[in-house]
Amino acid sequence: MPRRSAYRPPKIPEMTIRRLSVYTRCLLQLEEDGVKTISSQELAERFNLNSAQVRKDLAYFGEFGVRGIGYYVSGLKAELQRILGLDHEWPVALVGFGNLGSALFHYKGFARQGFRIAAIFDDDPGKYHREVDGVPILPIRDLAPEVRARSMQIAIVAVPADAAQVVSDQLVAAGIKAVLNFAPARIRVPRDVRLKDVDLSIELETLSFYLAKGSR
Amino acid sequence: MPRRSAYRPPKIPEMTIRRLSVYTRCLLQLEEDGVKTISSQELAERFNLNSAQVRKDLAYFGEFGVRGIGYYVSGLKAELQRILGLDHEWPVALVGFGNLGSALFHYKGFARQGFRIAAIFDDDPGKYHREVDGVPILPIRDLAPEVRARSMQIAIVAVPADAAQVVSDQLVAAGIKAVLNFAPARIRVPRDVRLKDVDLSIELETLSFYLAKGSR
Repeated sequence: MPRRSAYRPPKIPEMTIRRLSVYTRCLLQLEEDGVKTISSQELAERFNLNSAQVRKDLAYFGEFGVRGIGYYVSGLKAELQRILGLDHEWPVALVGFGNLGSALFHYKGFARQGFRIAAIFDDDPGKYHREVDGVPILPIRDLAPEVRARSMQIAIVAVPADAAQVVSDQLVAAGIKAVLNFAPARIRVPRDVRLKDVDLSIELETLSFYLAKGSR
Repeated sequence: MPRRSAYRPPKIPEMTIRRLSVYTRCLLQLEEDGVKTISSQELAERFNLNSAQVRKDLAYFGEFGVRGIGYYVSGLKAELQRILGLDHEWPVALVGFGNLGSALFHYKGFARQGFRIAAIFDDDPGKYHREVDGVPILPIRDLAPEVRARSMQIAIVAVPADAAQVVSDQLVAAGIKAVLNFAPARIRVPRDVRLKDVDLSIELETLSFYLAKGSR
């Protein structure tokens, strides 16, 4: 396999990254089913994908297909996991342990992809200084030493909208490099910090769009 | 304004629909700030969007800009809301009232966009036949009459993975036309039903991709 340390990718669309996540899940499924190799055409048919899109997305990262064979399922899966940073575990800070924070803590999907919530932060004295499933709940003033001690680079923000910016500033000051924001608020972070806002109502709006279209 | 009942749009990318949701939020913000008109350039700068993309996305639906003026903020907002089906309320069924279901029920973003959870369904006898914030929790066997009585077309699935397909089949049989699935499971629906899977770990993977890239 060629060395890739000098590899400089072109600007990659975020939708391509999202689709890599989907392909990884499909390949995991195929691996579980005992499938060794698959063509982009079969992959597309089986998982209702677009085969040209699959090839285009993968082409950003290298040549993975083998003529006459297709893709080696386990090999491609491992390669995509490496590209997505899923070849090792990420300790994650969760800030806010209300309804949503609690649901996110128990969400099975994170751990399966290697995201382990390593510490929870909440400023409600009724919540902190205890543990949930072995994970400590701590006051937000403890962020900086905990982020360092636990090597956390990613934080999930699940606090009310009016607290989101303050919490985000504290996370950045503590050394966090990527923030997944569930608070319904626009927050600002420095350029060297990645921010991803999750707005769950947008998902519903893609549905209402199609329902409304059908009735127009 | 021209009548649009005969309007047949071309196939519109889902990312365009998602961006219409984002533009609507930006326009709401501008309206609150008292801004009457804005150019695509100013809109892009203010909200960190791509002005060519804004124009291209809107072009799927008509001519909204006025030469020398730009967009009328309130008018464009209302038009986008109509396109997204947000010009009226959608009663929504929520199935599953565990951690995630409870968090989704309390999620402020849905109601703000006109999605009102009208009934909750859960098969735990410890949960049903009571109300939460005035919304009834009912056993799943009551789905069909409730979906009809409350004119619900959209359902949110927040049950464990192994129950997701059964619940989805029951929703479809009850007349639901669009399903937002939070269960970490692939479910199948008939062609005339819209399905949207929400996989929260994909959001984290777009972050780990960039962190991993930085360290490569």
